[in-house]
Amino acid sequence: MKALGIITEYNPFHNGHLYHLRKSLKTTDADYTICVMSGNFVQRGNPAIIDKWNRVKMALEAGIDLVLELPIAYALRSAEYFAYGGVQLLNQTGIVDKMVFGSELGEIEPLIEISEILADEPTELSNLIQEELDKGVSFPKARAEALSIYIPNLDTTLSTAKVKKTINNPNNILGIEYIKALIQTNSQIKPLTIKRKGADYHQTKIKGKITSATAIRNTILKDQSLQDIKELLPSYSFDILKENIRLNKGPIDLENFELPILTILRRTSPSTLKEIEDVTGGLENRIKDAANQATSLLELIDLIKTKRFTQTRIQRILLHLLLGLNKSTLKGFDKAGGPQYLRILGFSKKGQKILKTMKETSKLPLINRVANHYKSAYPADSLKAKMLAMEVKATNIYSLAYNNPKYRQGGQDYTQPLILKN
Amino acid sequence: MKALGIITEYNPFHNGHLYHLRKSLKTTDADYTICVMSGNFVQRGNPAIIDKWNRVKMALEAGIDLVLELPIAYALRSAEYFAYGGVQLLNQTGIVDKMVFGSELGEIEPLIEISEILADEPTELSNLIQEELDKGVSFPKARAEALSIYIPNLDTTLSTAKVKKTINNPNNILGIEYIKALIQTNSQIKPLTIKRKGADYHQTKIKGKITSATAIRNTILKDQSLQDIKELLPSYSFDILKENIRLNKGPIDLENFELPILTILRRTSPSTLKEIEDVTGGLENRIKDAANQATSLLELIDLIKTKRFTQTRIQRILLHLLLGLNKSTLKGFDKAGGPQYLRILGFSKKGQKILKTMKETSKLPLINRVANHYKSAYPADSLKAKMLAMEVKATNIYSLAYNNPKYRQGGQDYTQPLILKN
Repeated sequence: MKALGIITEYNPFHNGHLYHLRKSLKTTDADYTICVMSGNFVQRGNPAIIDKWNRVKMALEAGIDLVLELPIAYALRSAEYFAYGGVQLLNQTGIVDKMVFGSELGEIEPLIEISEILADEPTELSNLIQEELDKGVSFPKARAEALSIYIPNLDTTLSTAKVKKTINNPNNILGIEYIKALIQTNSQIKPLTIKRKGADYHQTKIKGKITSATAIRNTILKDQSLQDIKELLPSYSFDILKENIRLNKGPIDLENFELPILTILRRTSPSTLKEIEDVTGGLENRIKDAANQATSLLELIDLIKTKRFTQTRIQRILLHLLLGLNKSTLKGFDKAGGPQYLRILGFSKKGQKILKTMKETSKLPLINRVANHYKSAYPADSLKAKMLAMEVKATNIYSLAYNNPKYRQGGQDYTQPLILKN
Repeated sequence: MKALGIITEYNPFHNGHLYHLRKSLKTTDADYTICVMSGNFVQRGNPAIIDKWNRVKMALEAGIDLVLELPIAYALRSAEYFAYGGVQLLNQTGIVDKMVFGSELGEIEPLIEISEILADEPTELSNLIQEELDKGVSFPKARAEALSIYIPNLDTTLSTAKVKKTINNPNNILGIEYIKALIQTNSQIKPLTIKRKGADYHQTKIKGKITSATAIRNTILKDQSLQDIKELLPSYSFDILKENIRLNKGPIDLENFELPILTILRRTSPSTLKEIEDVTGGLENRIKDAANQATSLLELIDLIKTKRFTQTRIQRILLHLLLGLNKSTLKGFDKAGGPQYLRILGFSKKGQKILKTMKETSKLPLINRVANHYKSAYPADSLKAKMLAMEVKATNIYSLAYNNPKYRQGGQDYTQPLILKN
C-alpha cells in the first residue's frame, strides 16, 4: 500500500489545492491519499472561514481518501509546531510513505540541506540568530538573515542569493519545517515538493484561475459576494461555501470574536497573559495596555504589533487567550511526541481500506466518535483527554460565531457524524 | 450638621425617586443629602442602563449634595450584602444621622422588629429556614416562610398575615436588610421609611406618572423609543437619558454582553465556576451544561433557572463571571468591614461643605481621583487596591457595550472628571 500524505488547511479548498493534489498523485504514483487538516482554527491566527466538517466535504469531493484532524494544539501554533504536529500524525498512521508539499522554490534538495542544518542547529548559527534577534526583528526574519550569513561559508553549492530567496518565502519555510520534523522524528516518510502555481502566498488580489486562499477569503469577507471567486474554486467547493453562507454559518472571521476577545483581555491580568505561548519579552504589558486603549480588534492588533511581534503571532496569542489554551499544557503535548490520537473527520470508500490497514499499523488510537473516547476511555488528567477537551472547547467557541443562532449549540464534536463519500 | 443618607441605584432617576427624595427631606428636616449609588452594574444582575457618571448628573440635578459610589463588590451582591455595603459607607462618613428608604409597608416598627430577630438569628428560626430550603425553594422564599411561622409564636403584635405581607415585598426585605446592617454595625444612624408610591417594584407596565425603574427600562429597551416614558422622569433626567442614547452610549442591557458571557462560559471549567459567589449545590454543572446547549443569553438563563436558583441570582453569577469577581476576594472585603474607601463621584456646591467636614469625620480615605490612589498609594495586594481594581475592571468591560466604538476606551475611572454642580 502506497499512501501519500499531505498537510493542509483547505480554507477554503481552491484550484491551487486541486492542482497540488493532482500533481502530487502523478509524481508519487500513490494508491491512497491521506490528508491532515486543521480544524476550526488555522495557523495564521484566524478562525477557518467555514467549519471543519464542511472543509472535509470539499477535500473528499476533490479525491482525498481520508481526512485526519490536526489537533488545535498544533494547528494554531508557529510553523515549527504546526509542521511537527502534522508530520507526527502522518508518521503515526504507519502507512504513509511519501509527503508532498507546495513551495515557491519547487526543488527539494536546497530545502533538505537547510533543514539538516536546522534539525541539529550548530552553536555558531544559534549565536547569529540571537544577534539578529537583538536587533528587534521577528524570529523568522532573524533566522533567515542568520542562515544567509552562515550557509555560504559552508562547503555548499547554495549561494547567498539562493539561501535568501529560499528562506524568505513562507511555503519554503513551512517545507523546511516539515523536513526538519521528518529528520527529528526519524521518519520513514520521503518528502517531495511541487512548485506552487499561479499565486504566491501573500498575494491578495485575484488574477487568473489559481490564486491564494488569502485572496479568496479577503474577497468573500470584504465584498460579501461570491461572484468574483466562482472561477477560482472547483464547483463542489464553491457550492459548499455558498450553502454555508446561505445558512448564515459563514463566512467566519476573526472580527466575529471582537467583543469576546476585548472583554476577556480587559478581565485578564498580565501575569495570566504570560501563561500563553509566545508571550515573552514584556509582551503581556504591551497587550494589556493596548486592550485598555483599543476600541476595536483592528486597533488592538495595530497597537500591539511591532517588527518583532508580527501580526500572525499576535493573532495566535489572542486566539489562545480566547480558547483558553495555555503554554504549559501545549509544552506537555510537545514533550510527549505531539498528537495523542488520530481523529478521523471523514473518508471515501477507498478510505475505508486505509482505515482497515491502519487498525494494524497505527501507533496511536483511532478516534471516529469523540463521545466514545472523551471522558469515558481516558482519565481526565491524561494527555489524550486534555487534547480532546481542547478541541471540543475550540469548536464550542467557534460555533458562537455563526450569525444564525440555531447553529450555535455546543458539543458539535460529539454530535456531528463522520463525513462519508461514496 | 444634619445629613440624610440614602442608598440608591437611580437606574434611571425617575419621578418616584424624586418623590422619595423630597418626602425624605421633609420628614428628616436634613440640611444635606448624601447618596450612595451603585456604579455601572446593579443589584438585580444587570448593567446600568446608562453609565454611573450620567446617573450622578441626574442625582445632582435632583438636589442630592454628594454621591458616593457603592463599590461593585457590594452593588452586585444579594440584598444582604448590598445593604451591608451601603450602610457601612453611610456609617463611615461620620456625619449621616438618618437614613430613609422606600418600602411597600411604609411603617418602620414592624421592619425593625423583624430585623432585630434576623440580626441575631435564633437557632429555631435557622432550623425552620433550613426546612424550607430543603423543599427546593430560593433563600428569600424560605426565609419569608420560616418567619411567618416563627414570629406569630412570639410575644408580638405582628399577625401571620402582616408578617407574610411584609416579608414578601422586595423593598420591605431590602429595608429589613438595611436595619439589620445598622444593628450589626452598631450604627448611630436612625432608619426611617416612606411608603412607595404609584407602582410596586415588579410592575412592568406603565401607568400614571410614577412607575418603577424596571418598567421604564423595559420600555426603553423594547421600543427603542423615549416618547412613552417622557412623563415619568424629571425633565433633566429625561434629557440626560436622551442625550446618552443619541450618542449611542446607551441603553445598555445584559444582552449587550451575550456573546462574551456565552464565550467565557464555554471556556470556563465547572471547578472555576465554583469560585463564584452563590454557585452552590452543583449549580456549576447546571450552568456548564446550559452554556453548551444555549444559543442565546435568554435561553441560557431559562435553562439554568429553577425555583431555588432565581433569575436575579443567575444574572448576578453571570456578571461575576464576566467581570472576573471571585468569592474569596469578596469574602475578604466582608471580613474587613466592607467598603475600604469613600469614592466620590460628584457633588453640588453644598456638597463641598459636607466634604470639608468629612475630612475630619470620615473613618475611611476619601478618593476623588482614582489615579492618585490606585497602584501608587496602596500596595497591589491590599484590600483597597483590590477593591479599586475591581471597579476599574468593571468599568473597562462596561465600556465595551457602547454601540459607538469611540466611547469604548478603557480606564474611564481614571479619566472621567468628578461630576460637579453649581
